[in-house]
Amino acid sequence: MSASSFTEVSTVLNHKMDVDIPDLPSGPLDIYRKKASFSWKDMVRFLDGEEITAFKNYVFRTLENDPIFARQPGEDVPIEKVRELAFRRCKQLFKYNFLTQEDVMANPWKTIVLNDCLGMYDWSMGSKYFLNKGMFGGTVANSGSQRHNKFVQDTEHMMVFGCFALTELSHGSNTRGMRTTAKYDPSTQEFVINTPDFEAAKFWVGNLGKNATHAVVFAQLYTPDGVCHGLHSFVVQVRDTKTLLAMPGVMVGDMGKKLGLNGIDNGFAVFHNVRIPRENLLNKTGDVTPDGRYVTPFKDPNKRFGASLGALSGGRVSISRMAVVNLKLALTVAVRFSATRRQFGPREDEEIPVLEYQLQQWRLIPYLAAAYALDHFSKTFFMNFVEFQIGLLMKDSSDRQAELGREIHAISCSSKPLGSWTAQRGIQECREACGGHGYLAMNRLGDIRNDNDPNCTYEGDNNVLLQQTSNYLLSWLQYRQQGKGKIESPLGSVDFLEDMGSILKSRFTAQSAEECMDSAVPLAAYKWLVSFLLGESQKKLALEKAAGLGDFDARNNSQVYYCRSLAIVFIEHMVLQRFHDLTRDLDTPADLRPVLQRLCALYGLWTLTNHMTILYQGGYFSGKEPVDFVQTAILTLCGQLKDEAVALVDVMAPPDFILNSPIGKADGELYKNLWATVTQGKDVLDRPSWWAEFCFDKPDVGCLRAKL
Amino acid sequence: MSASSFTEVSTVLNHKMDVDIPDLPSGPLDIYRKKASFSWKDMVRFLDGEEITAFKNYVFRTLENDPIFARQPGEDVPIEKVRELAFRRCKQLFKYNFLTQEDVMANPWKTIVLNDCLGMYDWSMGSKYFLNKGMFGGTVANSGSQRHNKFVQDTEHMMVFGCFALTELSHGSNTRGMRTTAKYDPSTQEFVINTPDFEAAKFWVGNLGKNATHAVVFAQLYTPDGVCHGLHSFVVQVRDTKTLLAMPGVMVGDMGKKLGLNGIDNGFAVFHNVRIPRENLLNKTGDVTPDGRYVTPFKDPNKRFGASLGALSGGRVSISRMAVVNLKLALTVAVRFSATRRQFGPREDEEIPVLEYQLQQWRLIPYLAAAYALDHFSKTFFMNFVEFQIGLLMKDSSDRQAELGREIHAISCSSKPLGSWTAQRGIQECREACGGHGYLAMNRLGDIRNDNDPNCTYEGDNNVLLQQTSNYLLSWLQYRQQGKGKIESPLGSVDFLEDMGSILKSRFTAQSAEECMDSAVPLAAYKWLVSFLLGESQKKLALEKAAGLGDFDARNNSQVYYCRSLAIVFIEHMVLQRFHDLTRDLDTPADLRPVLQRLCALYGLWTLTNHMTILYQGGYFSGKEPVDFVQTAILTLCGQLKDEAVALVDVMAPPDFILNSPIGKADGELYKNLWATVTQGKDVLDRPSWWAEFCFDKPDVGCLRAKL
Repeated sequence: MSASSFTEVSTVLNHKMDVDIPDLPSGPLDIYRKKASFSWKDMVRFLDGEEITAFKNYVFRTLENDPIFARQPGEDVPIEKVRELAFRRCKQLFKYNFLTQEDVMANPWKTIVLNDCLGMYDWSMGSKYFLNKGMFGGTVANSGSQRHNKFVQDTEHMMVFGCFALTELSHGSNTRGMRTTAKYDPSTQEFVINTPDFEAAKFWVGNLGKNATHAVVFAQLYTPDGVCHGLHSFVVQVRDTKTLLAMPGVMVGDMGKKLGLNGIDNGFAVFHNVRIPRENLLNKTGDVTPDGRYVTPFKDPNKRFGASLGALSGGRVSISRMAVVNLKLALTVAVRFSATRRQFGPREDEEIPVLEYQLQQWRLIPYLAAAYALDHFSKTFFMNFVEFQIGLLMKDSSDRQAELGREIHAISCSSKPLGSWTAQRGIQECREACGGHGYLAMNRLGDIRNDNDPNCTYEGDNNVLLQQTSNYLLSWLQYRQQGKGKIESPLGSVDFLEDMGSILKSRFTAQSAEECMDSAVPLAAYKWLVSFLLGESQKKLALEKAAGLGDFDARNNSQVYYCRSLAIVFIEHMVLQRFHDLTRDLDTPADLRPVLQRLCALYGLWTLTNHMTILYQGGYFSGKEPVDFVQTAILTLCGQLKDEAVALVDVMAPPDFILNSPIGKADGELYKNLWATVTQGKDVLDRPSWWAEFCFDKPDVGCLRAKL
Repeated sequence: MSASSFTEVSTVLNHKMDVDIPDLPSGPLDIYRKKASFSWKDMVRFLDGEEITAFKNYVFRTLENDPIFARQPGEDVPIEKVRELAFRRCKQLFKYNFLTQEDVMANPWKTIVLNDCLGMYDWSMGSKYFLNKGMFGGTVANSGSQRHNKFVQDTEHMMVFGCFALTELSHGSNTRGMRTTAKYDPSTQEFVINTPDFEAAKFWVGNLGKNATHAVVFAQLYTPDGVCHGLHSFVVQVRDTKTLLAMPGVMVGDMGKKLGLNGIDNGFAVFHNVRIPRENLLNKTGDVTPDGRYVTPFKDPNKRFGASLGALSGGRVSISRMAVVNLKLALTVAVRFSATRRQFGPREDEEIPVLEYQLQQWRLIPYLAAAYALDHFSKTFFMNFVEFQIGLLMKDSSDRQAELGREIHAISCSSKPLGSWTAQRGIQECREACGGHGYLAMNRLGDIRNDNDPNCTYEGDNNVLLQQTSNYLLSWLQYRQQGKGKIESPLGSVDFLEDMGSILKSRFTAQSAEECMDSAVPLAAYKWLVSFLLGESQKKLALEKAAGLGDFDARNNSQVYYCRSLAIVFIEHMVLQRFHDLTRDLDTPADLRPVLQRLCALYGLWTLTNHMTILYQGGYFSGKEPVDFVQTAILTLCGQLKDEAVALVDVMAPPDFILNSPIGKADGELYKNLWATVTQGKDVLDRPSWWAEFCFDKPDVGCLRAKL
C-alpha cells in the first residue's frame, strides 16, 4: 500500500478528539494495568478515532439498556427459542436503525463497525440482520435494476424477509455445477423455476429455514429456444407474507441444528413449477425480452458469469474481519483469566499468575500480536474494497479498475483463510489456556469457537480459495517473463516481485536475537519466501505438465507444499507489511509506537517459524544461529509484552455485558464472577426431575446379561 | 518394548479364529472398497481378534436393539433431558452388566473395549458409568481397606452413586494447593469436613451436579494436635439416597452447560462442619487412631502424597485411548464423505470424488495413519499398565516395579497430550474437509470435537504434563553422566539413549524419495531428535541456572522450544517405534504388512515435518534434498493410500447406528441419507411459533433511533 493511500485511510479512520471512554473497574487486574507502557485509552483513540468510538459506545449501551437483549452467560436455550430471540432482536434493530443509507455513504467503515458490535454480542443476530439487508436487499439492488426497487424498499421496512440461495445439496464450491432451472414461458411472460431432483435442492440458505419470504435464487436460465444462458439470479417468493406458510410449489424447510450460529435458520427449498414474473430476473448482466430473446451487455459468457457472482465479492472481506473480532473476544477472556488465575510458584506459600509463565505467554501473546496485525489489515483492506466499489458505482471501465478487482479477489481469497484459521486456532488455544473453566459454556469460548468455525468454509472453502491467490501470483510471473511489462498492481501487493531476482539472492544477516526484534527482519524473510515459493510453484507446475498431465491435474498436484504455501506466505507478507508501515508511520503517536513495534516484530517472527524449513531448504537460513536468534527474540518479546497484555486487551474488549463471560470481566474478579454465575444458574441446587428413578427403582444387576 | 513382551501382548489381543463379521451394504463406496489391497475383515481379525470382535458386536447390537438407546442424529435436546437420558441409559448398563469382575480379570483389555464401544455411542453415558464404578468405586477399593467394602458393594448395585472430588474452584493442576479440611474430633470419633471459603469449593466433579450421593473428597487431614498431615481422601455422603436432596451442611449443585459431555452433571460442593465417621478415611496410605494419632506405613510424606494420588494413574492411559477413538469416528465420517462427494473434474461433464484431490488426501490420510499408529500404541501401553497394576496388587516392592511406575508416569504424561491434540486437530480437519455438511450437528463432527476437547485438559493440562516427561528424560541423562549406570528402563522406552553419542553423529542419508518411504528413515531421525533435544534442554537449563535463576524459574524458561519439544518427540518416537515393530513382525499377516508399512512410514514422515527446522538446525539435514524427498514421499504415500482409505475406515468404523452420522453411513449414499435425516427433523416444514410477530407487527423503522 502506498504512503498516500494509507494517509487517506487514516484520515477516514482517525479523528483524534476527546471522546468519553469510561474507566474500567478497579480490581486484581490493576497490577498489570499499571505496568503497561502506554495508555489504553490513547490506543483506542488512535485506532478507532472519536466518531467510531462514540458510535461503538452508543450501540453497546443501547443493547445493554434494552431488556430484549438481556441474557445469562451459558444459558441452555432450545433452538426454536434461540431463533425466536434472534428474530425479535433483529426486528428491534430495525427500530434502532443504527445506520441509515446516508450514514453509510458518509462513512462506509461504520457498516463494519456495526457488524463488529452486533457480532460481539451474538453473531447469529448480526448475521440474520445483514443476510436480509445485505445479501438479499443489497444483491437485489446491485444485480437488478429500477424495476426491483420495490423489493429493496420492502426489505428496508421488513414487509418481506430475504435470503440468498446459491448453494445446492450436492454443489457448493463448484458454482457452475448448479442445476436449478429457470425456463422462460413467453405465453405468460413468466419464468418457471424447477429443482430437477433433491440433490439440486437449495441448501444451507441462511434465513430460509423459518423466516424468509423471498429469496435470490440462482438458476440456469433457459430461453424458449432451449438454449441455456448460464447461471442467473431471480427473486422468488417462497412464503406468504401474511402467514409465513410456503408458497404453492415450494417445499421449504429448516436444516436443523448446526455446530454454532443457531440463531440463524439455515434452510432448504425444492421448487416444482414455480412461476415468477419475467421482471423478477435480476437483469444487470443479462435480460430476457417479453418474447423470449436473451440480451446482454456482455459478450464473453465467462465475464458475465464473473459479474453475476460479483455480488459475492464483499463476503470474504467481511469474513476476514469477523474472524479478527472473534480472536479479540477470545483473547480478552484468556488474557484476563491468565492475569488473575494463580497456580504454583517459586515458593510453597505464594502462587503466581499463570501469565508469568513463559509457556503461557508463548501460547497467547503471539495471537494477541496477530489480532493487532489482522485488525489493521482488515481495516485498510476494507477501505481498498470501498475504493473498488466506488469504481463500480461510477461505472469505471479503466484497466486500473479491472486490475483492482483482480487484486482484491486474490487478496480476499487468502485473507479469509488466514484470518479464519488464525482465529480458529487462537480461540482453541485460549480455550485450553483457560483450562477447565474455558470448557464451561458460560465463559463463552465454546460459542466463539463454534460461531467462528464456518468462517473457514462459507464463501469458499479456505483450501480451495487459496488456489485463486496462487493463480494470480503465477499469472504475474508469467506476464513478466513474457516481457509484457512490469509487475505492478493498484494496491502494490505484488510490486516487490519486480525485484524477485535480487530478493532471491538475499540471505538472513541478523547477528543477534536483539537484531531480530525488529519487524524489518521477518519482513525481508517474507519477501524472499514469496519469491522463492513463486519460483518453485512455477517449476513444479511445469514439471507436472512435462510429465504429461493436463492443466487440471497439474494444478491439483502442485497445491501441497507449493501453491498453497505460496498463497499463505503472500498474505502473511502483506499483513506484516501494512502493520510494519503503521508502526513506522510518523503519524502514529510516539508513545504508542514502541508497543506496536513489538507486536509487529512478534507477529512477523511467530508466523515465520511456520516456514523456517523452507528458509533452510532454499538457503536463506544456514547454520544453527538463525533459528536460535528468532526463537530467543520471540520469547524476549513475549516477556516484554506480558506486562502490556492486559492493557492491550482492554483496547479491544467490548463492555462486560457484550462479552458475557464471567472469567473475562473487566474487574478481574475471576472467582467471584464465576461463582456468582454458577450459583445463579437455573435449578442449580434442585434435585433432578428423575430423582425417583434413582431412589426407588434400582436396577437388577445383570438381569439383561446375555449368556454368550 | 522388547520383542518378547510384544508377543505376550499380541497373544492376549489376537485370537485368530473365524468370527462373524457382517458385510457392509453395497453402494457408491464399492468403487473404493474394490480397490483396496487387503481384506478389511482380515484386518479386523488381526487387530481385534475373535473374542474382542464378538464382544464389540454384542455390545453394539445390544444398544441398537434396546429402544432406550434410540436417538435421532442432530436432535436438539435440553440439558435436563440429556442428563436424564444419560442416567437412564447408565442404569440400563447395570442391567446388561457387560463385564463382570471375572471377565475383567480374564481379559483386562475388555474394560477398554467396553469404554470404546460406549464412548463411540456417547461419551457422556460411558463416562457417567465409569466415573461411578471406577473413579468412585475403584478408588474406594484401591485406597481404602476392608472396612470400605460396603461402599464398593453399594456402588455395584447402584444403592449409592459416586463421584471423585479433587479439583477446587481455584486449584486444578496444583493439587497440593487444595484447601478443604478434615479435622479429627476424638470426642465423637468423627472427621469434620469444611470448605474454608468458596474459592476452595470442590468444582468440576463429574456426577456431582445432580446425581451423586457419595463422593471421594480430598482434604487436608488435621489431627487434634493441630498438625496437618497433607491431602487424604474421605468418603463423604453428599445427598440422601432416598430423596436425592442435599445432606445437612452440604451445599451441592450443578455447574451448568459445558462445551460438550453434557450428559455428565459436573457439580460443586461446599462443606460446612460436615461430620463423617472416622472409618470413612480411605486409609491405605495413612490412618488416624480412635484417640487421634496419625499412623502411616510411609515415612516420606512426599511418597505418601504420590501414593494417595496413585489412584489417578490410569486416567491418562484411558484418555490417550479415548482420543484415538474420537479420531477414528471423525475419520470414518470424513473419508466416506470424501469418497462420495464429487466436486469439479478435468472435464466439464464429469466430477470426481474429492478424495481424488491430492490436497484432500494430504489433509486426511496422515490422520488415518495416526489413528492406526496411536491405536496400536494405546493397546500395547495399556498392557504395560496392566503389568504395573498386577505388580501393585502383588505388592511387588522391587526396584523394577518402582522404575516401571516412573516410566509409565512419564509415558502417560506425554501420550495423553499427543493423543488428545492429534485427535483435536484431526477432528477439526475432518470437520473442514466435509465443508458445510461437516457443520451440521446431525453429522456428529461437532459433538466428537466438543467431547474430545476436555481430553486436552483433565487429568492434567497437556502443556503442564509434558514437563513430567522431560524431567524424567533429563534425570536419566544426569544418572548416566554421574556414572550411576546404564540408561535402561523396564519398557525400554529410553534404552536407545545409551547410544546418544553415536546417534548425535548420525546424519540423514536417504538418496531418494523412494528410500524415505520406509518407516526406518523417520525412526532414525526421531532417535537423533530425542537425543539432540535432550542435550539442548540440559544445556538450556544449565544456562538459565548459571544466569542466577532458581530451579523453578530455570525450568519455566526452558519449556518452549526445549523441554516441551523434547517430551513431544520422545512420545512420537515411541509410538512410531512400536508401530514400526508391528509392521515388521513376522506374526503380522503378510497380506496386511504392505498397507500397514505404508501407514507407518506416512505417520513417521508426517509428524517429522513438524520438526524439520530442528533437523536443519542441528545439522541432521543439509541442503535442499532431504525436505524434497520427505515431502515427495508423503504425497506418494497419500496417493497410494487413498485407494485403501475406505477399507481402512471400514476396519475402525462402528455400525451406522452407533456412528449416527448420515454422511458417514456405510452404504455411502451421502445425499439420500442426509436428505432423509433433514426432512425427518422436528417441525421441519412448520412455520415458526412466532410467525405473527413477523406478519402482523411490523417495526417502525428508526423509531428508537437516538438523535446523536
